[in-house]
Amino acid sequence: MDYQKILNEIDAELKQTPNSGQVASYIPELSTVDPNKFGIHLITTKNQHHGLGDSNERFSIQSIAKALSLTLAFSLEKDQLWHRVGVEPSGTAFNSLVQLEVEKGIPRNPLINAGALVISDVLVSRLSDPKKEFLEFVRSLAGNPAIDYGSKVSASERVTGYRNAALVNLMKAFGNINNDIEEVLDFYFHLCSVEMTCQELAQTFLYLASNGINPLTQKAVISSSKSKRINAILLLCGFYDEAGEFAFKVGLPGKSGVGGGIVAIHPNQFSIATWSPKLNSKGNSFKGMKVLELLTTKTESSIF
Amino acid sequence: MDYQKILNEIDAELKQTPNSGQVASYIPELSTVDPNKFGIHLITTKNQHHGLGDSNERFSIQSIAKALSLTLAFSLEKDQLWHRVGVEPSGTAFNSLVQLEVEKGIPRNPLINAGALVISDVLVSRLSDPKKEFLEFVRSLAGNPAIDYGSKVSASERVTGYRNAALVNLMKAFGNINNDIEEVLDFYFHLCSVEMTCQELAQTFLYLASNGINPLTQKAVISSSKSKRINAILLLCGFYDEAGEFAFKVGLPGKSGVGGGIVAIHPNQFSIATWSPKLNSKGNSFKGMKVLELLTTKTESSIF
Amino acid sequence: MDYQKILNEIDAELKQTPNSGQVASYIPELSTVDPNKFGIHLITTKNQHHGLGDSNERFSIQSIAKALSLTLAFSLEKDQLWHRVGVEPSGTAFNSLVQLEVEKGIPRNPLINAGALVISDVLVSRLSDPKKEFLEFVRSLAGNPAIDYGSKVSASERVTGYRNAALVNLMKAFGNINNDIEEVLDFYFHLCSVEMTCQELAQTFLYLASNGINPLTQKAVISSSKSKRINAILLLCGFYDEAGEFAFKVGLPGKSGVGGGIVAIHPNQFSIATWSPKLNSKGNSFKGMKVLELLTTKTESSIF
Amino acid sequence: MDYQKILNEIDAELKQTPNSGQVASYIPELSTVDPNKFGIHLITTKNQHHGLGDSNERFSIQSIAKALSLTLAFSLEKDQLWHRVGVEPSGTAFNSLVQLEVEKGIPRNPLINAGALVISDVLVSRLSDPKKEFLEFVRSLAGNPAIDYGSKVSASERVTGYRNAALVNLMKAFGNINNDIEEVLDFYFHLCSVEMTCQELAQTFLYLASNGINPLTQKAVISSSKSKRINAILLLCGFYDEAGEFAFKVGLPGKSGVGGGIVAIHPNQFSIATWSPKLNSKGNSFKGMKVLELLTTKTESSIF
Repeated sequence: MDYQKILNEIDAELKQTPNSGQVASYIPELSTVDPNKFGIHLITTKNQHHGLGDSNERFSIQSIAKALSLTLAFSLEKDQLWHRVGVEPSGTAFNSLVQLEVEKGIPRNPLINAGALVISDVLVSRLSDPKKEFLEFVRSLAGNPAIDYGSKVSASERVTGYRNAALVNLMKAFGNINNDIEEVLDFYFHLCSVEMTCQELAQTFLYLASNGINPLTQKAVISSSKSKRINAILLLCGFYDEAGEFAFKVGLPGKSGVGGGIVAIHPNQFSIATWSPKLNSKGNSFKGMKVLELLTTKTESSIF
Repeated sequence: MDYQKILNEIDAELKQTPNSGQVASYIPELSTVDPNKFGIHLITTKNQHHGLGDSNERFSIQSIAKALSLTLAFSLEKDQLWHRVGVEPSGTAFNSLVQLEVEKGIPRNPLINAGALVISDVLVSRLSDPKKEFLEFVRSLAGNPAIDYGSKVSASERVTGYRNAALVNLMKAFGNINNDIEEVLDFYFHLCSVEMTCQELAQTFLYLASNGINPLTQKAVISSSKSKRINAILLLCGFYDEAGEFAFKVGLPGKSGVGGGIVAIHPNQFSIATWSPKLNSKGNSFKGMKVLELLTTKTESSIF
Repeated sequence: MDYQKILNEIDAELKQTPNSGQVASYIPELSTVDPNKFGIHLITTKNQHHGLGDSNERFSIQSIAKALSLTLAFSLEKDQLWHRVGVEPSGTAFNSLVQLEVEKGIPRNPLINAGALVISDVLVSRLSDPKKEFLEFVRSLAGNPAIDYGSKVSASERVTGYRNAALVNLMKAFGNINNDIEEVLDFYFHLCSVEMTCQELAQTFLYLASNGINPLTQKAVISSSKSKRINAILLLCGFYDEAGEFAFKVGLPGKSGVGGGIVAIHPNQFSIATWSPKLNSKGNSFKGMKVLELLTTKTESSIF
Repeated sequence: MDYQKILNEIDAELKQTPNSGQVASYIPELSTVDPNKFGIHLITTKNQHHGLGDSNERFSIQSIAKALSLTLAFSLEKDQLWHRVGVEPSGTAFNSLVQLEVEKGIPRNPLINAGALVISDVLVSRLSDPKKEFLEFVRSLAGNPAIDYGSKVSASERVTGYRNAALVNLMKAFGNINNDIEEVLDFYFHLCSVEMTCQELAQTFLYLASNGINPLTQKAVISSSKSKRINAILLLCGFYDEAGEFAFKVGLPGKSGVGGGIVAIHPNQFSIATWSPKLNSKGNSFKGMKVLELLTTKTESSIF
């Protein structure tokens, strides 16, 4: 498969289409990004690289980081993890308190905000220096010790993160948060602020296309079985209220962030990252969704 | 009407009935109260006093205080107050986040927790020393400068009040809280900790049976029109998810608290306070509800 | 109290105010009414009559009839009636299936559509010829044998009443409807189609201002205790999602219908009916609400 | 891969485990089935057959038929189909009216009852003799003209199907049902009553493992792209409120029915059908779920 040619075709086609949507504005630090940034990077499991556009410029990966904190927590915990967070699609907006209240403080899955806060609580319990150790984990996946938190973004999040504070307080009321609320929120806001390029992002997630093996080190990040399960969660829950639409039109496990990034995985074939800051009404990158839809249409290939 | 005779009859009848229910246990300081405490005090608008039992022992008035903070806020604010909180019954449990999320951070009424937190925010904005001035307001109604906050209870609330913290954070996310969250919560937990006897409680609420006039000072606490409107809110919203049941069986405006107290008002006739710590499944005093039902049955008199 | 003078003043004031709102359009037969129709009729418990405008023209009383079917059912049943329908405000729109599903087919109160369908089912079980006997009941209250169903309206309802069919099927699924669905719906659509003038409506509801006694016959329609309880239900549940607003601003038990009618009761004083077809966004007559608000403001008199 | 050996191992293992759960009892005709029935049949895309147990005994396929009616409707309609029904997981119980009301009569996906009723409405509009033509469609997939509706089951469904009648009436109220309600329900109850053996069921669904081609006729049932999309819907929505759990543990698109059947597809590899009437608390066959979980564990193979 000549992926470079396909990516170039997609790029050419999308130049004909207006780039709709709005840049995320709820955090000041996100709203200042150039809305016309656009990058793609694809890495095959045979280590072939294909990219274009602004694929070497860093941006805030935001919720994409939730797949990484999930991986780290799942590698440290056994199945009792799933007593504290479900694996079902949420069926409602990504930060809904309604579901959380009805289901007694157990979030539907680890990729909605509430679930990611529970995962953060797990890591705060498990790690002696959570922020440092999480960053090391991400750096080892990306193969780049320069990956870091975006300090302005995490500070910005803390100031406006009242809804996340509501979520974590509610779960604490239900007994599903063990640590100090401020410590959990601080860790959570940091992990969402990690900055990467498309290339780094595609590299970081390649273990999910490789049965849990980090291709850079040949070491297991997580077992093959757990790797498949994370892919299942990504497919069902990775795109907020648009997960079904993404599975329907693209057919790959993936995760998006409000910074405009999307990462998707074709098991045993490739991982791909896209970046375009304008978001559709569901909070997913408008152009990134189009790229991935065109990719699986042109390759006539999805997990289905 | 010989109210003392009627109260004695009620007392005698209730001695035949088992006192069901559970003492509130979510705050340690509340759970240690003697479950068999029982007091009634009724004061007519002609200043006749009738009481029995433990009517001169102080207890934590809890949510009953929300009617007082509402009165103070309504006396300071014009109708724009009702842009921030509604006057509709909640139709769901008293601390539901579901309704608050669906209705964009506007609580249904000022007597549910969320609404009382908005009222607290109003008072924190309006008063220069909110805790001190609120206490002075209550003392002037009770005619007793010894009325005070129960410090153990308010501290206890703060430790376990994660759900209230969730509510106030959610409303802050919707832009409906103007002050610092900790300051609003601190004021709220204090007002709920006020301690009174049945006699003091009946005295305190007599202004609502007297068209807004404090009978002790003959000064207007609030206008006659606003006094009627507070009574309307009490009737519709004063008993959590059991407001309809109370209106149906008792037919008086009133307010209950999880400390086991209930206050009720018959406009132009009397105010009455009861205390019995065991709560029914809806969170209202089991025996207090019975007292008031028997009272309006025996007097064949309600607002309807 | 010179009620005629007050009504004339209200009429004069409202002529200065634009008459907002929309005539109900979901049934063709309702949408053809002249939107400028306007009538008031007040009858005191001493049988003094005061009226103005189109107070002797008949209109479809719609949901107001639900208070009458409730009265008839409550007079026939004991308290077990309340195992099948609650007495709590609904807190949501008047025909919501959400609440009904969450609460296992038990409607919150007898004045929302679901509750009125349960009351209809009770009457279908209890009466040998339900439509005939209900009409006789209404005629005896109105003192007029010419009162009748509006046949075009009831036929019109049946054609478009899919939401009511959904409600009754859902309750049947929960075991809370005993009779044939079509028979219950037919009775329900008929009772909502009853046509009356303001004068007839005020006369019909005078028993609720008279402790359950029909002033025309001096016979008890229902016991005094039950009469008070129906007033309590009217106050809490009579105006859909605007019940709190009505209690707050008007302070009287009442019931509205989408035909533009409203009836309100001041116990031991009067009953009043208004008619103006334009409805506010909550489905209550815009001008009728204003009339009643002005009435209790000018008389400085409400149940509170 | 020696599938027969693996199936035999699974069978042996499951004999060591208690068979939990309850046979569906809401329809009398389903409750009389022998709870110990157990069959498996797997067919590879190379037409290899492997089976065991009661795999040649017919049972009521129930909701599994919804995947077939969806296929037929999707083959007849263009993308405007998705204006009437979504492709998102439901996040709530399979027959919830709550979601339907909130989302204005548009079901979340075509596999919940409401969505299947919309699909039925589409087929009633599109086909001249819907019941006959649907049966022919199923027979051509199964390669067996003896496949038929279970008349007792469909009659039984009609009698108790009040909740489905509620759903279809509610959608009609929202304008999302075009045909007569009784005709839609009759078609729906028939399609759910189709009876097949495990072998017939596996054969019938083999087109979804074969890019939309019926292997028996080599004709396209549906385009390759649409076939992938149906698989995506099956993965996200095929197991009621347990879809995430199934994707997480099994990792294959599939569909279950309350008759105890499950069908699952591994694209380009096989289709498999299981039958065991005892259902877990989510309404899916307890033993069938175990079979499929063991299958993908033992083969270390899923779509992820």
